[in-house]
Amino acid sequence: SRELFVLTYGALVAQLCKDYEKDEDVNTCLDRMGYGIGVRLIDDFLARSAVKKCRSYSETADMIAQVAFKMYLGVTPRVSCSSAAGNEFSLILDKNPLVDFVEELPAERASLCYCNLLCGVIRGALEMVHLAAEVTFLQDRLKGDAVTEIGITFLRKAEDRKHKRS
Amino acid sequence: SRELFVLTYGALVAQLCKDYEKDEDVNTCLDRMGYGIGVRLIDDFLARSAVKKCRSYSETADMIAQVAFKMYLGVTPRVSCSSAAGNEFSLILDKNPLVDFVEELPAERASLCYCNLLCGVIRGALEMVHLAAEVTFLQDRLKGDAVTEIGITFLRKAEDRKHKRS
Repeated sequence: SRELFVLTYGALVAQLCKDYEKDEDVNTCLDRMGYGIGVRLIDDFLARSAVKKCRSYSETADMIAQVAFKMYLGVTPRVSCSSAAGNEFSLILDKNPLVDFVEELPAERASLCYCNLLCGVIRGALEMVHLAAEVTFLQDRLKGDAVTEIGITFLRKAEDRKHKRS
Repeated sequence: SRELFVLTYGALVAQLCKDYEKDEDVNTCLDRMGYGIGVRLIDDFLARSAVKKCRSYSETADMIAQVAFKMYLGVTPRVSCSSAAGNEFSLILDKNPLVDFVEELPAERASLCYCNLLCGVIRGALEMVHLAAEVTFLQDRLKGDAVTEIGITFLRKAEDRKHKRS
C-alpha cells in the first residue's frame, strides 16, 4: 500500500519547507536526498527486476518507466524521445501518485518541485550503472500543466557534460 | 514495493537529526508528524479494509496488527495483552521493515526512537475512531533489544487520561 509512503513523503517536503525559505533550496535538498536513495535503491531494483543490461538510452528510458516506476510507484509513465540525438527522453505521467494528498501548492511555494526527490532517485540510480544524466521536471500538474513530465538527458561524454553545464 | 518508502523515511529521520540536536526533539517531531499522517490515513484504511467496528480493545489491537500493519508495512506483529485491566497491548515485531537499511544508531543518537512516526500514526488513526491511546516504543531491536515492541495503552475515560499524565 502506497498511502503511508505518500503521506510520509508529504511530511518530508513540509519539513524541508520549514527548514528552507527558498523553494530553490528545498528543490536542491530533495534532489540530493533522492540521489542518495537512488544510489542505494539500484541494487534492490537490479536484484528484483532481474533485467538484463540495456543496449540503448531508449531501452533504459523504457526500463525506468515500465519496470522501475511500476515497481516503486505503481504507475507506468509514457516515454517519448525528444531529441534527434536520441539522448533526451520524457517520462509523462497522467497521474502522479506522490501528489495524491496534495491539492495545490501554496501561493508562496510556487517554485517548489514537490516531487523533486524522484529526479534525484533516477539520477543516483543511473549513475550506479555508469550512466550520467540530468533529470528535471519539465511539466508539473501541481503547477497547472496538463501532465507531469520528467525530462532525462543522458550525458554521453565528459564534453557533453561540460557543454550542458556551461 | 517498500524499499523506496523505507529509504525515504530514512531521509526524513536524517533531516530531523540535522534539524534537532536532542533525540527527544526528533522523537517528538516524528510522533507529531505521524499523528498528522494517521489522522489522514484512517479514511484510506477504513475504505480499503472494509472492517467492521471493533467491539473491544483486544479486537482493535488485533486489527492494527493483522490488517493495518499488513496493509501498510507488509508485516504482522504478534499481539499480547499486558494488563489485567485489558487496556494495554503490545505489538511485537520480530522484523521491522522500516529499519531494513539501518545498521545501527550512531552513538550520539542513542535515545532516538527511529520509528517513532509509527506511534504517532497509530495514535492519530485511533483518535479518529474516538479511541484515545498512548503509543510508545517499549523495546527496539535498533537499541539491542531482542524484538521491537510497540506499547498501546487505551485510555478509557478522562480520569484515566488525567491519571496517566500525572
